[in-house]
Amino acid sequence: MALVIHPLLDVGRVQSGDDIATILEPALRVIGPDHGDVLVVTHKIVSKAEGAVRKIEGDEEMFKKELIEEIARSIVRRRGNLIIAETKHGFVCANAGIDRSNADPGTMILLPDDPDRSAHRIRTRLRRSFGVDLPVIISDTFGRPWRRGLTDIAIGVSGLLPIHDLIGTKDWSGRDLDVTEIAVADELASAADLVMGKAAGIPAALVRGYDGPRGDGRGGELVRPVDEDLFR
Amino acid sequence: MALVIHPLLDVGRVQSGDDIATILEPALRVIGPDHGDVLVVTHKIVSKAEGAVRKIEGDEEMFKKELIEEIARSIVRRRGNLIIAETKHGFVCANAGIDRSNADPGTMILLPDDPDRSAHRIRTRLRRSFGVDLPVIISDTFGRPWRRGLTDIAIGVSGLLPIHDLIGTKDWSGRDLDVTEIAVADELASAADLVMGKAAGIPAALVRGYDGPRGDGRGGELVRPVDEDLFR
Repeated sequence: MALVIHPLLDVGRVQSGDDIATILEPALRVIGPDHGDVLVVTHKIVSKAEGAVRKIEGDEEMFKKELIEEIARSIVRRRGNLIIAETKHGFVCANAGIDRSNADPGTMILLPDDPDRSAHRIRTRLRRSFGVDLPVIISDTFGRPWRRGLTDIAIGVSGLLPIHDLIGTKDWSGRDLDVTEIAVADELASAADLVMGKAAGIPAALVRGYDGPRGDGRGGELVRPVDEDLFR
Repeated sequence: MALVIHPLLDVGRVQSGDDIATILEPALRVIGPDHGDVLVVTHKIVSKAEGAVRKIEGDEEMFKKELIEEIARSIVRRRGNLIIAETKHGFVCANAGIDRSNADPGTMILLPDDPDRSAHRIRTRLRRSFGVDLPVIISDTFGRPWRRGLTDIAIGVSGLLPIHDLIGTKDWSGRDLDVTEIAVADELASAADLVMGKAAGIPAALVRGYDGPRGDGRGGELVRPVDEDLFR
């Protein structure tokens, strides 16, 4: 009943045009993926493989600022160099998801165009290679308004339900639960980050023993609709 | 190098005055706590043991509303029955942390008075029992403004640094990381929630293989200071 999170080690550097499933296959083969495992992949390598990068032109800070304004659906807050923006996917995050860490020199990494599609593609290819249907989560590192520090969350999902809906479930006393919607895909992304780290060069992890609901979920389900949003 | 998360099974019901370390000891003994393990305990059983509960008087919804207003440091947002409030600890969450799930009939559960002290007490007692210094996290389930679903986060910490500061760390290309402060205690709480569930009656989990920084951390370090807050 324990949950085991295996880091995928010795994954090579990723370049534009690479196939992520192929890149991850040797590391997965070492672990031996099993029915019920969930694969978490940091979006960085997905974006690189898909060419979701931009070459920096001119002054870096200025370029970044203009790029955020170009790609963001809306700017949510601005203070000094900090810009909180809504991406075209609906994610609210710093810099509209643009990041320079682990980018090739002279470039910035954007979010994948459609992280659910990216997850689906990896899942399909790995099913072909291993004969096992592994749900896939594409993760990114987001901040939170009232809490310091960042945590990894799910921006793309394939093969599992990102929210575990416990509606109708009873607590120990037979009472309906107050809290019913658990963002399990975000919790899986956070759990995976604990073995990936930011500097360790480990871009993916395999989670074994997760018994939450499988199904046809999308990362977009984790985005709160604007009309429910009290903080924009 | 894998991270393993063991649920603590067959933990008995907790009552006011119980000692949480004593309650968890048999389940921990089955797993065999080891140096380097981290214990995550949901605040519900801690609050119950410490008597941080209130007997409902009169109409339940009205009682809850008045209780929130009594204990909250400030009300951050209100819409219908939903109240987002700041607790005396500085946490911003629904209902100032008051919850009815898994409460004894006719009662509501509050947050522990001082979750760091609660964590410290459990850690001290378990060190005496097992001769092993287990960092302890007290967890709760919080919502997020822009994402649907809830995740578990750390409200109390003892024996580990809740934020892993990677400042000065280089990425794969030798570049400084953009993102340097990782809320590892929140990620550990989320990881633990994956084996605890809300209805399964599993109130704690032991995390093995976490190699992040130990030290004299506090849960309050995860609270963003008000002057850095762009969303209040």
